[in-house]
Amino acid sequence: MRTIRIALIGYGNVGRAFAEMLLRKEDFIRNEFDAKAVITAICTASRGACIRPEGIDTRTLTEEMFDRERDAFAVIESGEYDVMIELTPINIMTGQPATDHVRRALALGKHVITANKGPIAWHYRELRDLAKAQGVGFCHEATVMDGTPVYNLTKETLQGCRITEVSGIFNATTNFILTEMEKGVSFEDAVAEGRRQGFVEADASMDVDGWDAAAKLTALMNVLMDVEITPLEIERTGIGEITKADIDAAKAQGKRIKLLCRGTVEKGKPVGVVAPTLVDEHTLPAIMDATSSYVTIDTDLMGATTVIEEPFEPEIDHTAYGLLSDLFRILTDFSHKALR
Amino acid sequence: MRTIRIALIGYGNVGRAFAEMLLRKEDFIRNEFDAKAVITAICTASRGACIRPEGIDTRTLTEEMFDRERDAFAVIESGEYDVMIELTPINIMTGQPATDHVRRALALGKHVITANKGPIAWHYRELRDLAKAQGVGFCHEATVMDGTPVYNLTKETLQGCRITEVSGIFNATTNFILTEMEKGVSFEDAVAEGRRQGFVEADASMDVDGWDAAAKLTALMNVLMDVEITPLEIERTGIGEITKADIDAAKAQGKRIKLLCRGTVEKGKPVGVVAPTLVDEHTLPAIMDATSSYVTIDTDLMGATTVIEEPFEPEIDHTAYGLLSDLFRILTDFSHKALR
Repeated sequence: MRTIRIALIGYGNVGRAFAEMLLRKEDFIRNEFDAKAVITAICTASRGACIRPEGIDTRTLTEEMFDRERDAFAVIESGEYDVMIELTPINIMTGQPATDHVRRALALGKHVITANKGPIAWHYRELRDLAKAQGVGFCHEATVMDGTPVYNLTKETLQGCRITEVSGIFNATTNFILTEMEKGVSFEDAVAEGRRQGFVEADASMDVDGWDAAAKLTALMNVLMDVEITPLEIERTGIGEITKADIDAAKAQGKRIKLLCRGTVEKGKPVGVVAPTLVDEHTLPAIMDATSSYVTIDTDLMGATTVIEEPFEPEIDHTAYGLLSDLFRILTDFSHKALR
Repeated sequence: MRTIRIALIGYGNVGRAFAEMLLRKEDFIRNEFDAKAVITAICTASRGACIRPEGIDTRTLTEEMFDRERDAFAVIESGEYDVMIELTPINIMTGQPATDHVRRALALGKHVITANKGPIAWHYRELRDLAKAQGVGFCHEATVMDGTPVYNLTKETLQGCRITEVSGIFNATTNFILTEMEKGVSFEDAVAEGRRQGFVEADASMDVDGWDAAAKLTALMNVLMDVEITPLEIERTGIGEITKADIDAAKAQGKRIKLLCRGTVEKGKPVGVVAPTLVDEHTLPAIMDATSSYVTIDTDLMGATTVIEEPFEPEIDHTAYGLLSDLFRILTDFSHKALR
């Protein structure tokens, strides 16, 4: 049986949900991959890091096990892991420090899984090529629509198709706010409700101003359309200026306002747009309520394929599942390579 | 470079579209898989078979190259191929002769791709286990929603999830007829228009009576939910009894009538239902117009994931792409095995 050792760089809600899911799927991993997944390092934002080459039982993890002197780079340089999972908070404007974490782990010949879309939005091509040169996996399914397969769908099931356009609703927070506003709730109350439910950040501006959607669009375009574009190059309009009157006027015309994303290549140049858009009430974007989202992938051979995510439970578990599915991908693709 | 030799059992529109697509993707196959795909046998319904171990150039194929004395089994027994592609017309009531073709090719240690859903609806578990025992591939992506990834989506990207329900609109013909009837077109005229556009069979009853949808639901349940159910066990109601008055009454309530499919497991027993259903106009089934279709897969870990197919071009190419994506899957999964 193989052992795959995991370093978690960041240990918030997603990291903890992932650790729990890993325990729940222990038998599946053994039966399906003849492997045992062990967390050997955890790095937190404020309490330092815990490195245990023999494995950490996350059920009995205590404050005292962390060493405040050790940071993310100490964990990464320790080398006591096969897969680094990048879970630090995103800085959409720079992609840092996540990009440096990913770059260094790949350079050390480690597999990398990232839930942080910064590295994909800013430096995808470089990191992809580095992973390839190192012969390791570089997975990022959880960066768009949580664990809903978007990248893997294209990579594993639409092989040989050329992607001509990606479009959809990528940001759940703004979709939730717009849905609430249609019910008569004020912008402020909708944001407050989203905060209460746990999916609106303390600073909602990254969502409201369209930066999160722009980063996801960038990530999808870089990966699926093989272009090089950054979030700053996206034509971006947020929903901050949308008023109750706008929404009512749309309704009166049998329409709704949705924050749509669309990426194409025009005359060899990548073009990405994020903007509130009037859509007919009987179309796919119009019926995406609350925290649902979708991606449509237009191709040369297969027409349009759309994937919709409808979270049943709080979003957080779905992100953790995205990380788990990436781990399965690495266990599958590198089955020939002794992980330990 | 590997050579992968293909036998086409059936050579109608889909077979010819596949042969053409194979030529178009020659470079891709060489670059991506270090392989050359060669058609070495073609079996037709009425003209017999053509077997050429050195390869058949389908661009210059002539009537004289076929031997009327040879049938599908002569091709299958010849062994002059690595992959058999089953493309004969479906008999939904028996799954034959496709099942016998598939069974024999697998027994001979050949990879099998089927666009014919009969074998999957009637004998999936037996054939899957036979393929596994023989160490060969058994692929069937084109049996539901053409080449839109449904099986591969689940197998490759939702690993570790338990599928609790499959549902959706699986039959394009009935969806087209219902859409036309809403526009005021009569049932008969809608069928005639579908025939003119080439996607309604001479005998429309398999579609209209819900048999095609039932066979697809059976196929999805057998593969994704690991049950054993046949089309005869599906609770099936067609659209033949739907009148203009029904459709108008639905519209007056802000609803539409759609032929929905739903498969679950209740108390350990698989339950499948195909039936015309009243759906609210602002829901996913309601906005599926004309020949669009979708599958929703409910899971334990990832909520609901939905895949939508919207054909841009005539449906036929998408089925051929489904075969091609299955071929890519075999080239990927059996890369370690010398194909020749």
